[in-house]
Amino acid sequence: MSAQRRTGLGTNQEAVRRHNLGTLLRHVHAAGQLSRAELTTLMGLNRSTIAGLVGELEALGVAEHASPSGSARQGAGRPSAGVRIADAGPFVIAVDLGVDKAVVARVGLGGRIHRRAQAPVVGGGEAWQVGASVASLIRTVVEDAPAASPLVGIGISVPGLVRRSDGLVRLAPNLEWHDVSFGGIVLAALGLDVPVSLGNDADLGALAEHTRGACVGVDDLIYVSGNVGVGAGVIIGGHLLRGYGGYAGEVGHLRFNPTGRPCHCGNRGCWETEVGAHAIAEAIHCPPDRVAQLDEVLADFGKPSPELRTTGTALGHGLASIVNTFNPQTVVLGGYFTSLYQLVSTEVSRGLADLALPAPLESVTLTLPGLGGDSPLLGAAEIALEPLLVDPVAALDAALDDVHARVAMKAG
Amino acid sequence: MSAQRRTGLGTNQEAVRRHNLGTLLRHVHAAGQLSRAELTTLMGLNRSTIAGLVGELEALGVAEHASPSGSARQGAGRPSAGVRIADAGPFVIAVDLGVDKAVVARVGLGGRIHRRAQAPVVGGGEAWQVGASVASLIRTVVEDAPAASPLVGIGISVPGLVRRSDGLVRLAPNLEWHDVSFGGIVLAALGLDVPVSLGNDADLGALAEHTRGACVGVDDLIYVSGNVGVGAGVIIGGHLLRGYGGYAGEVGHLRFNPTGRPCHCGNRGCWETEVGAHAIAEAIHCPPDRVAQLDEVLADFGKPSPELRTTGTALGHGLASIVNTFNPQTVVLGGYFTSLYQLVSTEVSRGLADLALPAPLESVTLTLPGLGGDSPLLGAAEIALEPLLVDPVAALDAALDDVHARVAMKAG
Repeated sequence: MSAQRRTGLGTNQEAVRRHNLGTLLRHVHAAGQLSRAELTTLMGLNRSTIAGLVGELEALGVAEHASPSGSARQGAGRPSAGVRIADAGPFVIAVDLGVDKAVVARVGLGGRIHRRAQAPVVGGGEAWQVGASVASLIRTVVEDAPAASPLVGIGISVPGLVRRSDGLVRLAPNLEWHDVSFGGIVLAALGLDVPVSLGNDADLGALAEHTRGACVGVDDLIYVSGNVGVGAGVIIGGHLLRGYGGYAGEVGHLRFNPTGRPCHCGNRGCWETEVGAHAIAEAIHCPPDRVAQLDEVLADFGKPSPELRTTGTALGHGLASIVNTFNPQTVVLGGYFTSLYQLVSTEVSRGLADLALPAPLESVTLTLPGLGGDSPLLGAAEIALEPLLVDPVAALDAALDDVHARVAMKAG
Repeated sequence: MSAQRRTGLGTNQEAVRRHNLGTLLRHVHAAGQLSRAELTTLMGLNRSTIAGLVGELEALGVAEHASPSGSARQGAGRPSAGVRIADAGPFVIAVDLGVDKAVVARVGLGGRIHRRAQAPVVGGGEAWQVGASVASLIRTVVEDAPAASPLVGIGISVPGLVRRSDGLVRLAPNLEWHDVSFGGIVLAALGLDVPVSLGNDADLGALAEHTRGACVGVDDLIYVSGNVGVGAGVIIGGHLLRGYGGYAGEVGHLRFNPTGRPCHCGNRGCWETEVGAHAIAEAIHCPPDRVAQLDEVLADFGKPSPELRTTGTALGHGLASIVNTFNPQTVVLGGYFTSLYQLVSTEVSRGLADLALPAPLESVTLTLPGLGGDSPLLGAAEIALEPLLVDPVAALDAALDDVHARVAMKAG
């Protein structure tokens, strides 16, 4: 007890230093580049402490010196030298597993996509086949990574329910997956052992839009995603609402119309039966084999039909339930809802105004993703980068330094 | 800059000490009584620091020495002296403003109700009349407060939408209030100037159940309240979900049946039109003048009628939307939902199981409030006590010491 107490202070100081190192890196990760003066203000630490932390990040290879820039936030006096994300620093692999295709990217700090690749995914395909395809895409994007860059981890966005405790995919209805350990499958196909994190696509979309998309500085937001199924990622008070098991945000299965159409979940009249991809495809006479590309079909659409206007109203009506429940400042319309909103924004807004209570309605804004279709992909990168932003030293200790030796030779 | 830096350490130490003082008081407030050994474990501080903090709380009159008790958590060895909430310590006034009656209580630390009083509230009554009635109840409960006990503040639970920034009651539909500054009205009627906090009744119910009710240790819970209107208080990850303006949780206005009955909000088929007090009163042929006492009417009810069973199913169906959206660990059924659930629990559970997704359903429990009908009242006490638990020194500096001189003489 007494020995513990004696070493307590030293351990605590070390913990504080590592915490500060992560926090500083998080600021640079969010902003891309910051002057030392800006860091002094943001961190509330003095210049010499900041200089020490920056030096340490440089030594770790995650940040590098930047010449003073004409930053808008720069005050009077001598320009302050800056720090930015290192060009050949650590990276993560981000995977956006959609219902028709998988997109894989090599992403660095700052959310910079260095290389991307994609391949089709066949609905109802076995998870190990999809895993093999994703592993092949990972080999492709890793190919030209700088030799000295370590791989910190893999983040995977999944269109389904992901268990918070261990990342098990409990249900991905449009892939027809139940209880699939997809993270393990990908690692096995790669022959690697690196940290892997999985998340629901709408949750990760919300995370990315909050970090570097349309909602920087907005702490109460909902990212509602149309992606064959319909789901929501909810950030309230700056924190992702995960729920007890990790399944929060399944707004596609809000009861919407008790005499409505059957839903794949086994019930009738869920919101998804009116604004899900299959309902919209029917409304616009889209061929069944193009449902998974509804986003593109809608983007090419001309004048909206009456049926599409009705769908827009149904989107607004469901958003009203969401606004009454969460009272968000911003609702981001992701997936094919982006194209749908561009076609029938009047109906969406009117549907929302019809059913939302005045108090939460008055402060809410509907908006489109700042990151386009990349929100879930960049959200997957964020969860993979998270350990690096909590404790850069520990995360780099655990990172894989010999990616090329381990992966690239198997590419093909 | 340099002078600031020099005093920085001292200021910081003082802030840490005050923070620790508040945290220690929060632990005693939650547990009622704790040994110094338990506090050492809970706070991660050594015995002498704990002893110093306890001494300071005793000097402030908020805590007092407790003889060693046979606490279950007590380890081997010499029993450790304890600390408990002071008998004649500071207190708050808690107000639960219902749609038919106002309940007012004098509440001390530890959530102890020292005295309570109530009076009818007339629906559609002017806010100043209700304010005068509440002020009179406050005088009554303050009457026999110990002369040395300071009044820390007033907390008020309101059946409506309360603006987060300033406590304005934006809408209390069953009181027919719009944009009422009820806190100011009560203070004016009392002739006092003390801190006053307002909150939505379901939010405060959730808070109280989390602190000392059915959900101690449960960090993802929803308190769903039937109280003429229907609302929810949501605690996720241990934090109350308030929403941008403070209006989150209006689940009574989830769209439920587009061809359903008109709702007072101006729409049709909100969940409230099927499980609100008026719908239930109709189902059980309750006289209109007893709708506000539906809780008691249901408690006296015999065998549930088919109509009541249908209402139970509708309650379960709406809970499914809530479970799919929030993935809570526990749903507490407050207000008249307590009596309703006791009558038709089978239908409620079946309705929930019918429409909830398997993943969030498997971990959720329906339960009744641990604090009975007092959850919103005790939640109102919690928000009034909050400043005392953040910084006891500052809160006691701001507290009113001469309550009797200022209030009691006007009682009548």
